[in-house]
Amino acid sequence: MKYVLASKSPRRKELLELLDIDFDIVSADIDETVNPSLPIVDEISRLSYEKAFAVSDMLSSDTVIISADTVVELDGKILGKPDDKNDALKMLKALSDNTHNVITCVTVMCGDKHLTEAVTTKVTFRKISNTEITDYIKTEESMDKAGAYGIQGRASKFVSHIDGDYFNVVGLPVCTLSLMLKQFDTTTEE
Amino acid sequence: MKYVLASKSPRRKELLELLDIDFDIVSADIDETVNPSLPIVDEISRLSYEKAFAVSDMLSSDTVIISADTVVELDGKILGKPDDKNDALKMLKALSDNTHNVITCVTVMCGDKHLTEAVTTKVTFRKISNTEITDYIKTEESMDKAGAYGIQGRASKFVSHIDGDYFNVVGLPVCTLSLMLKQFDTTTEE
Repeated sequence: MKYVLASKSPRRKELLELLDIDFDIVSADIDETVNPSLPIVDEISRLSYEKAFAVSDMLSSDTVIISADTVVELDGKILGKPDDKNDALKMLKALSDNTHNVITCVTVMCGDKHLTEAVTTKVTFRKISNTEITDYIKTEESMDKAGAYGIQGRASKFVSHIDGDYFNVVGLPVCTLSLMLKQFDTTTEE
Repeated sequence: MKYVLASKSPRRKELLELLDIDFDIVSADIDETVNPSLPIVDEISRLSYEKAFAVSDMLSSDTVIISADTVVELDGKILGKPDDKNDALKMLKALSDNTHNVITCVTVMCGDKHLTEAVTTKVTFRKISNTEITDYIKTEESMDKAGAYGIQGRASKFVSHIDGDYFNVVGLPVCTLSLMLKQFDTTTEE
C-alpha cells in the first residue's frame, strides 16, 4: 500500500509515524474559510475531505490519502489561530478555568472510496493567572495553533483533565484512524 | 531555586522540561517492593516519597526534589513491567477492550517540607487483535513499561479514550505538579 499524508503539520507527521506505515507528504492549499451559519462538524468534515481531494489528482488511484482538520470550539464559537499576541491573550483567558471541545475530522481516501470521521475531545484548563498567560505567549508556542495553545508543549501544565482521545487534540485521532485504515488495507489477515 | 528530578525515566525528564525550570537528575535505587495487602495508593505514595528522601541527604536543604511513582491497575491488581514477552502478551490481552487506571504519585520535597499527591487517569483500550498485540511486542516498546505499553509510542493506536490527565499516564501529572511547585517557589509574584 502507498500512503500519503495531505498535511504540512509536523505534529500530524509525528503521529502518523506511530502507525508504522511508510508515507509521503503531499499537501495542497485549499480555501479554509468556514461558514459560521453551518454546523461546525459539517464544515470541518468538508475541509478534511477537500484537503484529501485536492491532492488526489496528483496521485495514482491506489494511493491511500490521509487528511485532517482540527478546530477548538468554546461555547459554540470556533477559536482559530490567533491573529496576534493580544488575540492569543484573549483566547487563553477564555479557556482558563473552563472546558472546551477539540474536534478533528479525519479523511481516508483511495480511488473512489473515502471515509471521514469526526472525533471530539473535551479539554479542561485549570485557572491560569495573567502572568502564566503572558509568560506562555512569550514562548511563541501560541501563534501557529488553533486556540492559541499546544497541549504537547508548555501548555501541558494548564490542562487538568481530558475526556476523549489525547492525540485528537494534538491533531490526529490515532486510534480512530488505525481502525479506518483497516478498511482500506487489502493485506489485513483478520 | 535549585531543582532535582529524582528519577532516571527519560519520559519524566522530557515532561519536567515542559515546566521551563532548570534541574539536575539525581536518583537512588530504592526497594520498590509493594505490600499487596495495603491500599495501592498508599504504597505508591510511600515509594514516591522514599525516592525523594533517598537523595535528600546528598543535596543542600534548599534544593527542591521532585520524584514520582506510576502504576497500572486493572481490576484491583497492579500490572508492573512485564517479565518477558509472554507476560507482556498476557497483560495486553487483559487490557484489550477494557478500562484500567494509571496512578501516579508525585512528591515535591524541600528541606523539612514535602507534599505528595496521587493522580488517577482512566485509560480505555479498544479491542486489539492477537496479531496487533504480537506486532506491538516485537517493537520492544513493552518491556520497560508498567502494563507493557507506552501510550506516547505505538500503543497510541490502542487507546480509544482517556479520562483524566494524559501526562499522568506518561509518568508525571504536569498540571498537578505545576500547582505543587508554586507552594515551594519563594519567587512567585502572585
